[in-house]
Amino acid sequence: MVVSIIGIGLIGGSLALSLRETGLAHHIIGLDHNPQNLAQALALGLINESTHDLAEAVDRADLVVVAVPMDAMLTVLPQVLDAATDRQVVIDVGSTKELLLRQVAGHANRARFVAVHPMAGTEHSGPEAAVPKLFEGKTLVVCDAAASAPDALARVEAVFRRLAMQLTYMSAAAHDLHAAYVSHISHISSFALALTVLQKEQSEQQIFALASGGFESTVRLAKSSPAMWVPIFRQNRDNVLDVVDEHLRQLQHLRDLLADGNDAGLYEQIEQANRIRKILK
Amino acid sequence: MVVSIIGIGLIGGSLALSLRETGLAHHIIGLDHNPQNLAQALALGLINESTHDLAEAVDRADLVVVAVPMDAMLTVLPQVLDAATDRQVVIDVGSTKELLLRQVAGHANRARFVAVHPMAGTEHSGPEAAVPKLFEGKTLVVCDAAASAPDALARVEAVFRRLAMQLTYMSAAAHDLHAAYVSHISHISSFALALTVLQKEQSEQQIFALASGGFESTVRLAKSSPAMWVPIFRQNRDNVLDVVDEHLRQLQHLRDLLADGNDAGLYEQIEQANRIRKILK
Repeated sequence: MVVSIIGIGLIGGSLALSLRETGLAHHIIGLDHNPQNLAQALALGLINESTHDLAEAVDRADLVVVAVPMDAMLTVLPQVLDAATDRQVVIDVGSTKELLLRQVAGHANRARFVAVHPMAGTEHSGPEAAVPKLFEGKTLVVCDAAASAPDALARVEAVFRRLAMQLTYMSAAAHDLHAAYVSHISHISSFALALTVLQKEQSEQQIFALASGGFESTVRLAKSSPAMWVPIFRQNRDNVLDVVDEHLRQLQHLRDLLADGNDAGLYEQIEQANRIRKILK
Repeated sequence: MVVSIIGIGLIGGSLALSLRETGLAHHIIGLDHNPQNLAQALALGLINESTHDLAEAVDRADLVVVAVPMDAMLTVLPQVLDAATDRQVVIDVGSTKELLLRQVAGHANRARFVAVHPMAGTEHSGPEAAVPKLFEGKTLVVCDAAASAPDALARVEAVFRRLAMQLTYMSAAAHDLHAAYVSHISHISSFALALTVLQKEQSEQQIFALASGGFESTVRLAKSSPAMWVPIFRQNRDNVLDVVDEHLRQLQHLRDLLADGNDAGLYEQIEQANRIRKILK
């Protein structure tokens, strides 16, 4: 099939690699508002050709993937749907869904659109960050599936099953709530941790020398791009605020137990936190 | 050389593997207050023999490694020094130093002791968590080196250089301050994050399904043992409280920017946090 990828960064680029590797796509057209990204995507062989013509990219495709940051998504996805016909299936791969689905709810071509969120990524961005097999074994959330045409949904399900993803279905509202818990809060916490250490630790050389694997893994996400994350936090603000507030309470509680010399209380809280072992591997 | 390892868990066990692999140790004696750990260490081949006699373990060794949790360390290290002579070199591998070094400051055999902290570890514990090459390429902090006899210091430096560690020297006070920044706060933050998610996310199945690599890396440290970490937090309380308070401020600041819809401010903070890129790889 012919696939057009609008926004050829980490996710769009990795999807291009997987679609080609599995033989699902025999021709990939790339479009990106950033000409450097587009040239790089061509040079890296992520796409077969580039274009600046959105209508043409949609018209020639069987599958259109919209993989732009969430602020651009709100305007690009409706433009893509404007250009779509019954021959195309359109997906987004965005990290928030409620606002986006409200945005396209009344669109004449809404049924050609399937909202998905592959729960996979890295802290890097741009086409050079694309990696093969990024999605393998990961979860794909399909949102508000009943609003998509059965043939469109079936095609998208077949594609992502072929990429070895596990599919799970939920409403846009449920998705945004869960995403706040298991993804967005990790980023907020990591940004705050990086700021803390950069603020307190004057000697950057010491951070470099002493930072062990534990520190690196907790601050890894702090390398993530603000252009991607600010729109996500904005669009999922209420959920993210709820979770941040709970995180502040938990952190303050640990702090108070430590300040009070309440070792038994601290021990018990850490044992509680250890329950995450049972859930993650 | 003959090495006695007091406390044969993740660090003691990993050190045993490295000392044997490099040929530095031809015989390793293990001692652990937990008989199960000791039996396991023998079964795993981490040690050649086990003993319950501390004085004998010290007497027969060229190098004595004390790798017990920091609460036990305060009593075990003085006992080891009591049994030591000029033939032995004694090291601890503990995560906090100020209190410990104060504890042994006046000891008759203080000069036989070299305080080191290998900046390496995992979230697992016990002898079965021991891994080869845990220390390779990592940093070893040597504390208050001037209080050790030149021959003892030289032997310890030779051992850890042979394990391909980079040596760095600082006072116990400087060590504890830096360790609070780059290690202890990561653990506090990760424990709080795990508690947050376990609290808010009722459906453990959803966490499991949706958690992607980012979440797993930020909460990985939350699997760490309270028996190890409570004594570290207690012994480094003032530094840890300072850093936790700064972390709370940073988190609250990000929260307020989000609540206020101050996207420009949020963007700028995330760009600041991105500076961690320059420091970590």
